Amino acid sequence: MADDSTKPQATAPGACESFEFRSIGHVRTPYTEKFGTPRQSNLVNDTTSTFELREDLNPEIFDGLESYSHVWLIFVFDRNGTQEFKKVKVHPPRLGGAAVGVFATRSPHRPNPIGLSLARLLRRDGRRLFLAGLDLLDGTAILDIKPHLPSREHPAEAHEGWSANLAEKTLQVSWLESAQADLHHAFGVDAETAKRAITQILEQDPRPVVYRGHADNPNPYTSRYGFVHAGWNVVFDLPESNQARVLALTAWPQTQPETQPKAE
Amino acid sequence: MADDSTKPQATAPGACESFEFRSIGHVRTPYTEKFGTPRQSNLVNDTTSTFELREDLNPEIFDGLESYSHVWLIFVFDRNGTQEFKKVKVHPPRLGGAAVGVFATRSPHRPNPIGLSLARLLRRDGRRLFLAGLDLLDGTAILDIKPHLPSREHPAEAHEGWSANLAEKTLQVSWLESAQADLHHAFGVDAETAKRAITQILEQDPRPVVYRGHADNPNPYTSRYGFVHAGWNVVFDLPESNQARVLALTAWPQTQPETQPKAE
Repeated sequence: MADDSTKPQATAPGACESFEFRSIGHVRTPYTEKFGTPRQSNLVNDTTSTFELREDLNPEIFDGLESYSHVWLIFVFDRNGTQEFKKVKVHPPRLGGAAVGVFATRSPHRPNPIGLSLARLLRRDGRRLFLAGLDLLDGTAILDIKPHLPSREHPAEAHEGWSANLAEKTLQVSWLESAQADLHHAFGVDAETAKRAITQILEQDPRPVVYRGHADNPNPYTSRYGFVHAGWNVVFDLPESNQARVLALTAWPQTQPETQPKAE
Repeated sequence: MADDSTKPQATAPGACESFEFRSIGHVRTPYTEKFGTPRQSNLVNDTTSTFELREDLNPEIFDGLESYSHVWLIFVFDRNGTQEFKKVKVHPPRLGGAAVGVFATRSPHRPNPIGLSLARLLRRDGRRLFLAGLDLLDGTAILDIKPHLPSREHPAEAHEGWSANLAEKTLQVSWLESAQADLHHAFGVDAETAKRAITQILEQDPRPVVYRGHADNPNPYTSRYGFVHAGWNVVFDLPESNQARVLALTAWPQTQPETQPKAE
């Protein structure tokens, strides 16, 4: 069980140190591209993701974790390409144009592209965890898993900052009858669960800001959108600015290059 | 502002990937050794710690963070020596002998020695944050800072696992009169704040399990203890098993080698 490659290595003493970490495993989620992936954890609860522990780690490392309802995942934003960190300020969709420093956000574009997500622990099976509410892209590398301690990690006096009361406008979601038929064809007995998950994703308006347009200036690029969910391309439009309508689910070959709109 | 050295580098595709991160800065805290450092954040609220941003990062990266009451610090357990990760199970003090997997704990001895602490944000001054409730050793390297989002990070149905209702026995704390005189000599106008902090630390019984002994078998090593707080050696004993008494505060030269009991 000795694992001698993960100790921190300080390459420069003093002001700036460098540390090397190895993934402890990866998650499998229904989300294969940023478009259509929930922006935060627990926005979409009706998906089950799995975490699989690295083969050389003893699964007893999870013993006792089953007793907690929620776990923290510390992960690497490694599935959005390797963009260099350049801008210290970002424009969160909910602020509609205003900029804040990246350390005042949960943006992936940070000096160290490390993420923190809370997930509901459904069950554990040996070296595998079943999780709900994850907002991670399929294949994301995980660095650490810790129990959530509600007694310590929710101070009564805690208050939210600029993001409070700035819930994004949610969309009303409808399905064409033919899209529901596609759904049953695609997901079989899991159709209703998949429908809830896709509906929750659409309620949050998954479109990047650049594709949303404004009231006076609708999206100049396209009126139809698609995002890949669990291997299926979910095609939708917006018949009204507060409504999303699922038009079809079409097979999405894993090997096909992405042609959907990309987030920023 | 470009910073081209912090992007993740996957050295091996597939099962195990390696990532390199650079510290974004360090914290200054009153805690210079593990003995006397709170075991979790928010146990000791009457200390102020500071975080200072790395010099080459633009302090605008914090803009907007002031609006949040609490922040997450993702840090490296880099001040306890570089112990290799070996044991997948640990014996938390509160379980009195029973073992759990390290991923079911917040133990520093993890495959990746990454920690997660919630701190109260008192104020920001340019590239410096003033924080309360931190449980980090002085000089700890920080990898990331994120706002705490109470609306998302405290699910109503969350429940704690093995650590619930296992609060450690707390000690009643008294001070010798001469120790109070030492306190005023040491901390001047900040004496009362320092007294509260030291009292809170002692209430949690900072002694490592190995030094506690049992009812029938008191600590075989020593009856006096000391821990360093803000540069002062706090000497105490336990006149009864549920009482701690501060005997003296003595100057603790920074350069003197540590001779105090060490936590595991």
